[in-house]
Amino acid sequence: MVNPSKWQRATGAEVRQACRRGELSGPTSGLALGYVQANLVILPRDWAFDFLLFCQRNPQACPILEVTDPGDPEARLVAPGSDLRTDLPAYRIWERGECVAEVSEIARWWREDSVAFLLGCSFTFEAALLQAGLRVRHIELGRNVPMFRTNIPCQAAGRFHGPLVVSMRPFPPQHVIRAIQITRRYPRAHGAPVHLGQPAAIGISDLLRPDYGDPVPVEADEIPLFWACGVTPQAALLHARPPLAITHKPGHMFVTDLLDSQLDEAI
Amino acid sequence: MVNPSKWQRATGAEVRQACRRGELSGPTSGLALGYVQANLVILPRDWAFDFLLFCQRNPQACPILEVTDPGDPEARLVAPGSDLRTDLPAYRIWERGECVAEVSEIARWWREDSVAFLLGCSFTFEAALLQAGLRVRHIELGRNVPMFRTNIPCQAAGRFHGPLVVSMRPFPPQHVIRAIQITRRYPRAHGAPVHLGQPAAIGISDLLRPDYGDPVPVEADEIPLFWACGVTPQAALLHARPPLAITHKPGHMFVTDLLDSQLDEAI
Repeated sequence: MVNPSKWQRATGAEVRQACRRGELSGPTSGLALGYVQANLVILPRDWAFDFLLFCQRNPQACPILEVTDPGDPEARLVAPGSDLRTDLPAYRIWERGECVAEVSEIARWWREDSVAFLLGCSFTFEAALLQAGLRVRHIELGRNVPMFRTNIPCQAAGRFHGPLVVSMRPFPPQHVIRAIQITRRYPRAHGAPVHLGQPAAIGISDLLRPDYGDPVPVEADEIPLFWACGVTPQAALLHARPPLAITHKPGHMFVTDLLDSQLDEAI
Repeated sequence: MVNPSKWQRATGAEVRQACRRGELSGPTSGLALGYVQANLVILPRDWAFDFLLFCQRNPQACPILEVTDPGDPEARLVAPGSDLRTDLPAYRIWERGECVAEVSEIARWWREDSVAFLLGCSFTFEAALLQAGLRVRHIELGRNVPMFRTNIPCQAAGRFHGPLVVSMRPFPPQHVIRAIQITRRYPRAHGAPVHLGQPAAIGISDLLRPDYGDPVPVEADEIPLFWACGVTPQAALLHARPPLAITHKPGHMFVTDLLDSQLDEAI
């Protein structure tokens, strides 16, 4: 049986090896504390230029940590020795924009021309918020963060386009200001919020009905803050409908060797 | 005859239109003050993924301001209404890594699959250094900045690889510290220096014999600071030898509508 506190204090490499051995198959929130976790998108080479351009044009939603060479399953920069085909707890297989399977390894779907994109993740700035003494509601409630499709269009790139997806975290006013100051230091983990206070202005009609994740209440003395979200590329995949795409299962991230502090641009 | 002070106070769009009409063919240093200028690299679509990846992996040398869609000669994000085929004062045409022509417009070389890369340029942080009261030697001397090939390899990407090229600016110790603090605010204009004080440690044997640009003396009480340089991709082109590439002529940049202050990440 998995001992969660053991994996809390593990390194990124230890978590990846446990995934590879099949010992870890659940969400990675709270594991290998201090190590940067990443969203994963894998596409065939002939779709990779459009998607790399999509990331470059929408850096708050899609902050690139690494892009692998075609056919190379190792994240040589952020996780030397890793194997992206086995080192995540769970994957999703997408065909023509539809999720057709959830699997624990992807050897069968990996191709000679597969290109893997690792994108920064909000776990990094949430760790910084917690360290600064801010309370992060969905973590306290043990829920997934609520995420919403907005009416803000992403900058299109070739076949990729779609709405910006945002995650929402409520704070009292003094902590709103502090949260903006803290998260702006992490542009490779979505950076500062993109909106606050007026959900309707960005096309969100009901904060209690997120499009992804779990609902989280906003108290009367709180203001909702909205960050660009790593689910945005999955929304763009729905539109682009590539023949094959592979992503992480939401919440089941790739754990790198990078330290959260290495993404802190204020250091 | 060109009146330089007129173009100093011009907008980016006015400088581009003057280039288009053939009225401006010289270096753009000091023109349209306050507007961001950019390095240009144009490649065929099937070389663009490798080069985009090269830029992504070497962001200090190749900070991306915009990448155009294949075949689209307009920089829609940073200079709406522009035409990259005519709006620079001078271009260089490269065949298999060799510069074969310098021209004032590139209509004949533009292809249906041409992709243009606009990369940030040190003019942006030099303006910030001058505004902070620092003296920038090569500007005072009316010379081009000295640039050196180092022994620091860039992260390769597909067919693109090569040494990091750096530019050198000398400062007295107090201004070294200030210059680091100021330039770190502009990651999309090369950001903080990559080295200081020990040229031999990065493979530079003689500061008075730069590989590109003009020599600039370092006084006894000064320390040389080295920044990643936008000439780095031209060094990588030499190695990759694509059938066709088009760049700006050094010093003859593309002037955007962006303001220098928009690249200041501290704002």
